[in-house]
Amino acid sequence: MIIHLKKEIGNTKANEIAIKTNSFIVEKRDFFVLISSSSLKEVPSEFREHVLDSYVFKDDMQLASREYQKETRTIQFGNVKIGGNTNNTIMIAGPCSVESESQIQASSALLKSHNLTMLRGGCYKPRTSPYSFQGLGFNGLQLLDKMRNQHGLAIITEVRDATHVHEVIEHSDIIQIGAKAMYDQGILRACAKTHKPVMIKRGFGSTLQETVQCAEFVLSGGNDNVAICERGLRTFENKTRFTLDLCGVAYLKEYTNLPVILDPSHAMGHAYGVPDLTRACMAMGVDGLIIEVHPDPSVAKSDASQQLNHDQFNALMQSLPAIGNAVGRKLV
Amino acid sequence: MIIHLKKEIGNTKANEIAIKTNSFIVEKRDFFVLISSSSLKEVPSEFREHVLDSYVFKDDMQLASREYQKETRTIQFGNVKIGGNTNNTIMIAGPCSVESESQIQASSALLKSHNLTMLRGGCYKPRTSPYSFQGLGFNGLQLLDKMRNQHGLAIITEVRDATHVHEVIEHSDIIQIGAKAMYDQGILRACAKTHKPVMIKRGFGSTLQETVQCAEFVLSGGNDNVAICERGLRTFENKTRFTLDLCGVAYLKEYTNLPVILDPSHAMGHAYGVPDLTRACMAMGVDGLIIEVHPDPSVAKSDASQQLNHDQFNALMQSLPAIGNAVGRKLV
Amino acid sequence: MIIHLKKEIGNTKANEIAIKTNSFIVEKRDFFVLISSSSLKEVPSEFREHVLDSYVFKDDMQLASREYQKETRTIQFGNVKIGGNTNNTIMIAGPCSVESESQIQASSALLKSHNLTMLRGGCYKPRTSPYSFQGLGFNGLQLLDKMRNQHGLAIITEVRDATHVHEVIEHSDIIQIGAKAMYDQGILRACAKTHKPVMIKRGFGSTLQETVQCAEFVLSGGNDNVAICERGLRTFENKTRFTLDLCGVAYLKEYTNLPVILDPSHAMGHAYGVPDLTRACMAMGVDGLIIEVHPDPSVAKSDASQQLNHDQFNALMQSLPAIGNAVGRKLV
Amino acid sequence: MIIHLKKEIGNTKANEIAIKTNSFIVEKRDFFVLISSSSLKEVPSEFREHVLDSYVFKDDMQLASREYQKETRTIQFGNVKIGGNTNNTIMIAGPCSVESESQIQASSALLKSHNLTMLRGGCYKPRTSPYSFQGLGFNGLQLLDKMRNQHGLAIITEVRDATHVHEVIEHSDIIQIGAKAMYDQGILRACAKTHKPVMIKRGFGSTLQETVQCAEFVLSGGNDNVAICERGLRTFENKTRFTLDLCGVAYLKEYTNLPVILDPSHAMGHAYGVPDLTRACMAMGVDGLIIEVHPDPSVAKSDASQQLNHDQFNALMQSLPAIGNAVGRKLV
Repeated sequence: MIIHLKKEIGNTKANEIAIKTNSFIVEKRDFFVLISSSSLKEVPSEFREHVLDSYVFKDDMQLASREYQKETRTIQFGNVKIGGNTNNTIMIAGPCSVESESQIQASSALLKSHNLTMLRGGCYKPRTSPYSFQGLGFNGLQLLDKMRNQHGLAIITEVRDATHVHEVIEHSDIIQIGAKAMYDQGILRACAKTHKPVMIKRGFGSTLQETVQCAEFVLSGGNDNVAICERGLRTFENKTRFTLDLCGVAYLKEYTNLPVILDPSHAMGHAYGVPDLTRACMAMGVDGLIIEVHPDPSVAKSDASQQLNHDQFNALMQSLPAIGNAVGRKLV
Repeated sequence: MIIHLKKEIGNTKANEIAIKTNSFIVEKRDFFVLISSSSLKEVPSEFREHVLDSYVFKDDMQLASREYQKETRTIQFGNVKIGGNTNNTIMIAGPCSVESESQIQASSALLKSHNLTMLRGGCYKPRTSPYSFQGLGFNGLQLLDKMRNQHGLAIITEVRDATHVHEVIEHSDIIQIGAKAMYDQGILRACAKTHKPVMIKRGFGSTLQETVQCAEFVLSGGNDNVAICERGLRTFENKTRFTLDLCGVAYLKEYTNLPVILDPSHAMGHAYGVPDLTRACMAMGVDGLIIEVHPDPSVAKSDASQQLNHDQFNALMQSLPAIGNAVGRKLV
Repeated sequence: MIIHLKKEIGNTKANEIAIKTNSFIVEKRDFFVLISSSSLKEVPSEFREHVLDSYVFKDDMQLASREYQKETRTIQFGNVKIGGNTNNTIMIAGPCSVESESQIQASSALLKSHNLTMLRGGCYKPRTSPYSFQGLGFNGLQLLDKMRNQHGLAIITEVRDATHVHEVIEHSDIIQIGAKAMYDQGILRACAKTHKPVMIKRGFGSTLQETVQCAEFVLSGGNDNVAICERGLRTFENKTRFTLDLCGVAYLKEYTNLPVILDPSHAMGHAYGVPDLTRACMAMGVDGLIIEVHPDPSVAKSDASQQLNHDQFNALMQSLPAIGNAVGRKLV
Repeated sequence: MIIHLKKEIGNTKANEIAIKTNSFIVEKRDFFVLISSSSLKEVPSEFREHVLDSYVFKDDMQLASREYQKETRTIQFGNVKIGGNTNNTIMIAGPCSVESESQIQASSALLKSHNLTMLRGGCYKPRTSPYSFQGLGFNGLQLLDKMRNQHGLAIITEVRDATHVHEVIEHSDIIQIGAKAMYDQGILRACAKTHKPVMIKRGFGSTLQETVQCAEFVLSGGNDNVAICERGLRTFENKTRFTLDLCGVAYLKEYTNLPVILDPSHAMGHAYGVPDLTRACMAMGVDGLIIEVHPDPSVAKSDASQQLNHDQFNALMQSLPAIGNAVGRKLV
């Protein structure tokens, strides 16, 4: 359960109660938050006078649960807000990897032509093989900085491991924790200490429960701005790269207060299926979409088969607003 | 590869060529069809004079492939056509199991109120446990016959195993082969000998390839009217009952000529997620939807948790036409 | 729970109690068995005078559970017994498919040279593609009959669907229900009415729970002789054909009274790995092994890559008794 | 392919060839190693005079493949060697987490009583929930140092993320990269720069291919001492914690030169199944076993259900040498 303790009792008393209830403690401006993953189902009577509020859960979710906070969290995602009482669905787009200035300028121009505000592009690539292109690293971050300065775009880019987490936090507007790095506490704990929004991509072999728990690492560390991205599970089916889990999205929407972003590009792994899937994602009524698009996918240094070209992306963008209208969502 | 041989060469010659090319042979009205699953990539020169057409494939799909027939098959689904040059998306609805006349009358009335034409309802239930409700069997089929006669509804109902396949063929308008029975050759071969449409539900542990091969059993036996239904894969995620594979649907749409029907009810397993998922399915641009709805899900004898009640179904129906319009589909 | 009712109360009274407790009823020679899959945890007081014994379970298993019968069932498997207080591990061997008399004679000779007693060989093959070799059907059964008569071998062969279940029951000593047919109630209910032993192969997408429930269909119908065969799950790993689930075997051994047979050939899908896996299976202390071996795997009409040749099988057989000794098992 | 270039050509020339063949380059004492993940199948004729050896592969494996080095790598694992021409199977044992000095002293005494040489114990725990016990961290490492000094035991402990990788490298004899951290390049690249052995645990959602590629990150960075640990895949089956993939182990043994260690404790997740599974692993003929054992599992701060108690471990140890003998393996 979660217990809010009155601030006036002071740190010593709050810590004493935390120890006695075997709870994790977070200090907020107006109260202390005690979080217990144990079987505690009731506030012990001796502490009841110090309690402001208390919350009991059925699943093993805490700060991210709708029992604790009913409304979806409002998060400033670049220049727009998502979640809360907005009905915004943000379209994040850009290439898999930042490869060169001319490439990323072309991507930026594409976004501007659609009044989109958030550019994606990987610099530290979590490639499977050490012998493949590994990304431009810090040079890539500098190219993304340039796009922010020249075009007013907000930037989301991936942190691969804890060795460069501080560079990514500094040079991005949204920090993307990649699917393979989801459990990385070096990253999660560093992200907990900033207030920049964090988008955690669910691991392809990770349960919904575990994904929400990774969000709890960030939330309980003091950063309230966390969104979840579903990008496909690894299943036995190998005609497609992964299996996008929209049933899981329905669960996240029902039981958690975290905004949800969908990545059909990585799930499908083949450009031909991305437009249909993106339309399905839009109809799910989620808070965001993240799509890979490249000026010339045939020469892309990573994920060549799944990136849309600009014409395909333009066609896709035409079809989305009407679906958004049908489900009460505004594409931004 | 597939080879069409001229009809005039006669059965003896056609069979001789089939044996020499290690092919399976099907006699059609206007030609013979030779199908080879082997590595044959070219018509042997000695037989070329007898050949009308030939088709080579990249994947192990034959009659169901777009290389063989580019356009989606047109199938009469009850009173409407799907596939082909229609842009119809049929909404099939009804309870998990036929339980009583009053129940199935209520379901029929619901369908009529929405001008829907096809009623679903299971009579032979493939229950996991022998100690659970097993369905009304033939009595259920008779109740469905009554609905057809009284209300003009078309009927789709499931065949569980080969012992009652002929009853189901006789008393239904569309034969549903359930997910657990997908590989059942006793059923598939019986369905190949009728011309009634067949809807094959993909097994929850079955690949796309295998599912299409089950369709090939029916197609190669002489029945051209086969649709595939995706109803969720079994994955490690257990917060939802199954994982609906929309990436796989994108594959089926791209590479096969089979109409595709989606069943979000079984995939999700919980009514709360069904409306969002159904909207996503509608936005995928598929040929049909099949939804479980029950006058009072709380007393349903099977799948109680996933069936919508009538109010929920009515609300869902209101939201679908606009999505259909956005993707060029008409809900029927 | 399961309740044994005194036989003297008679059918009418027993059925009345079954209905009132929402139970399934089985008549045994000395008592009635009532099986309830519901939440019944205690015998209602009004019926207590008629009760001989009662059993409560934690998982959804009934007649197959160790709570109901602590000792593993003893089953006559061909000429040997397995389970119970025997420590026998039966080695079942033979080709994937019966292809010709000369082939199956060679297989029989191989078995005789090792004093093995049970020959496997498929006649009705559940092939994925309709265009592949489908087995010799009834002609294959006749060849197997000949091997029984000539060599005194017991025969295990697979039933694919309900259309030929009676032929297989008549012509085999053990009825094998294949992985793709595991849920087939047409087969299960027919097997329940014979007393010949049945080996149910766990479906590659089936849970342990579901597999045990399929056994319950046979057990509750009156046939006590059921063994389970684990032959590999379908997972995301595609370097091997399936993933043999030895953790699941540990579960079956702990919680069920069903003898367990292991099939490493289908799990691995490649002959190179079969000997190591078979040794691992032997060390698990199971009741049986089933291995595919072919006089010349390179020309096999099905599963060519996974069948051992005779030399490989001979070498494997040499290494097994010592492992058996180490775990208190006798290879028969 | 992999090409060995003569050392005498010098760095400049070697790098020029690497760039022209789009290869990754590693400098060894006696030659340069060029590794190409591309489609290069033959040494370009212009460079042939500089080539010592070249190797072509069928799968995407390089330094870890048997085509490159036929014999299993010999690795000093604490005080014993595994792999190569030894037939050693090392038994690594100890608690899930280091919890206190008295606990780890008891574990050390257990190991000494069996003449075992390598103690396991986690200090940086990759827990799913931020609200659970996270391990003793550096204090735990100091307790392990004490065990090494007092008892002469070698130490294997897990690195969770890159923030403490250097502490773990310094204070352990074998570095364990946990299943959730398998892809962590911050860890892999740091491990590549030491010569201490590394045991990479395969991720529960990771393919064999990806696991071997993680080993390639370490091997290509200059550290030849890498072993793989299989500890179970995440599948749909939830009666056991994971599914131990012994088919995958057969693949690793056939196609890679990496020693293989098996962890049945994490795969099973329940102590009751661990002895049977450990015996199966021993019979597979692998290079090592890693077992969780705790003085009192009921009070363990992590993985309580899967740890053996000392009596269970003693009984298990008695049964292993005979199985080892049967497969030509010596338990050390």
